[in-house]
Amino acid sequence: MQNIAYFAQYLEKEIENLDFPLTPKNLYDPLRYFMNLGGKRMRPMLTLMSTELFGSTKENALPAALAVEIFHNFSLIHDDLMDNAPLRRNQPTVHTKWNDHIAILSGDVLLIKAYQELCKLDASVLPEILNVFNKTAVEVCEGQQMDMDFEILNDVSSSDYIEMIRLKTSVLLACAIEMGGIIAKTTSENRRLIYEFGQHLGIAFQIQDDFLDVYGDAGKFGKQVGGDILSDKKTFLLLRAFELANETQKQHFISLRTNEVAEDKIKQTKQLYDDLNIVLETKKAMDIHYEIALKALDEVQVDESKKKVLRDLAAYLLVREV
Amino acid sequence: MQNIAYFAQYLEKEIENLDFPLTPKNLYDPLRYFMNLGGKRMRPMLTLMSTELFGSTKENALPAALAVEIFHNFSLIHDDLMDNAPLRRNQPTVHTKWNDHIAILSGDVLLIKAYQELCKLDASVLPEILNVFNKTAVEVCEGQQMDMDFEILNDVSSSDYIEMIRLKTSVLLACAIEMGGIIAKTTSENRRLIYEFGQHLGIAFQIQDDFLDVYGDAGKFGKQVGGDILSDKKTFLLLRAFELANETQKQHFISLRTNEVAEDKIKQTKQLYDDLNIVLETKKAMDIHYEIALKALDEVQVDESKKKVLRDLAAYLLVREV
Repeated sequence: MQNIAYFAQYLEKEIENLDFPLTPKNLYDPLRYFMNLGGKRMRPMLTLMSTELFGSTKENALPAALAVEIFHNFSLIHDDLMDNAPLRRNQPTVHTKWNDHIAILSGDVLLIKAYQELCKLDASVLPEILNVFNKTAVEVCEGQQMDMDFEILNDVSSSDYIEMIRLKTSVLLACAIEMGGIIAKTTSENRRLIYEFGQHLGIAFQIQDDFLDVYGDAGKFGKQVGGDILSDKKTFLLLRAFELANETQKQHFISLRTNEVAEDKIKQTKQLYDDLNIVLETKKAMDIHYEIALKALDEVQVDESKKKVLRDLAAYLLVREV
Repeated sequence: MQNIAYFAQYLEKEIENLDFPLTPKNLYDPLRYFMNLGGKRMRPMLTLMSTELFGSTKENALPAALAVEIFHNFSLIHDDLMDNAPLRRNQPTVHTKWNDHIAILSGDVLLIKAYQELCKLDASVLPEILNVFNKTAVEVCEGQQMDMDFEILNDVSSSDYIEMIRLKTSVLLACAIEMGGIIAKTTSENRRLIYEFGQHLGIAFQIQDDFLDVYGDAGKFGKQVGGDILSDKKTFLLLRAFELANETQKQHFISLRTNEVAEDKIKQTKQLYDDLNIVLETKKAMDIHYEIALKALDEVQVDESKKKVLRDLAAYLLVREV
């Protein structure tokens, strides 16, 4: 059984070798740029690991792994534009480096390229792969729309939020890992279980992302700590805090929205979070989904020793000591 | 053999019955709205006609026909946004009626829906269908990028322009009609010929579109006559005229760019077109492609009588007496 670094190196090389045409330059240069900004390559790695878990080879799964990474990058290019984000992995986003129209169109072509990769798979698995991929791709769009809708809604609950992140991010991890099961032609029960593993791992990971934005180590995290607080983003922490708050605390949260002094806004929000035990609440929510994920993995019918690399990946993604 | 109206009615009913989810409302309402704005449904009609031409049934081809129409609508939603167009078929465009972000995301989900339709086809034809569809979808994006690039280039030739419209619009007609050949499992030579028919019909049709913008009957055409002249759009007419113009006429064209008096700008441009015989030049270009299209159709190896409906459609699309 291989380790995380082995899969990561293999993927990085294959992503680097993706062969985009040279012209039209304004269509393909942004793709070359964006696909090579790096990242953990978590989704394609799940596809490869799952394929090997169920007894096939990473080479058989490569088109599916690349497709899921390409799809992820398509959605990032369009989301960055819609969220008006200037940076991605500390580099200018496509609409910033080029322009809005180029971000739309190069995103579109990248989505089509994902399907071109999928079509390199063996015809015997293609219909099932496309079923899962299409369903997931639609759900990711639905999640992004819910996220945009939440921005202007006042009554979003923490469970609405979990459903939104499930669609916006977790189902793609679940799809990535289920595709490995399809390629290796495992049982439908194993497919269902490994999908569950991916989905709940994804939810736990996303809640952790919200947590680290407030409590993470700026150096390790690579983002501005408190960014979500400053932009009044409706994160799990904020929504859960609002649910637990008494009337006075609710008014305090509302008054903080117009507080323009960054340091003070972060400090007061964190104080409210402390008063409401939000660290514990958030860890509880993460743990619930992490446990469901691990239980599903336990139940997968393959040799226990082969599961180690997935357990390692889960532990690597969820930095439990934070 | 059925006639155009028969296919049109069948399609309109099936498009009306497309089953988009109710929520998220801001994601799916725009799709319901846009897909039902009407239009000639030229592309899906070509798929159905071609399928029957080669001996299969329209029901077998329906998913491919719907997919090509859905794809076309996806590209219109994004193009309208990029072109900043307020109206489509005399109704507000999606980014006008909703907003830019909704136009991006509902376009994205529509592109995925096209693939979902394709996946309803028989698995035996799916890989070949996807190959043609993916290649075409990429080309359409390349054509749109070239179109955007041309806006700021000063040395676009009329043949660059033909290549751009070939990619931006004609290959989708060609794909639509070739898919019928794939579904009906015709020979590869017939597939090649029917693709050629669709492609050159598309080019002729697009040149006609430029022509009608200047010389069409406003009532029949449903657009403002002279709109392309007023927006300095690089059409076939303008690019060909510029190629044929002497130095004085070139300077005249350039000076007209800053002419803000609409009626005068149209009148002077048309005078230049007349001096340069642009009506004849344009008809010549249309004829070249129309003839190539008809010749390819002639060579298709099926009973001549079955080709009538495609000849009728070609004649209907290309109003030769204008």
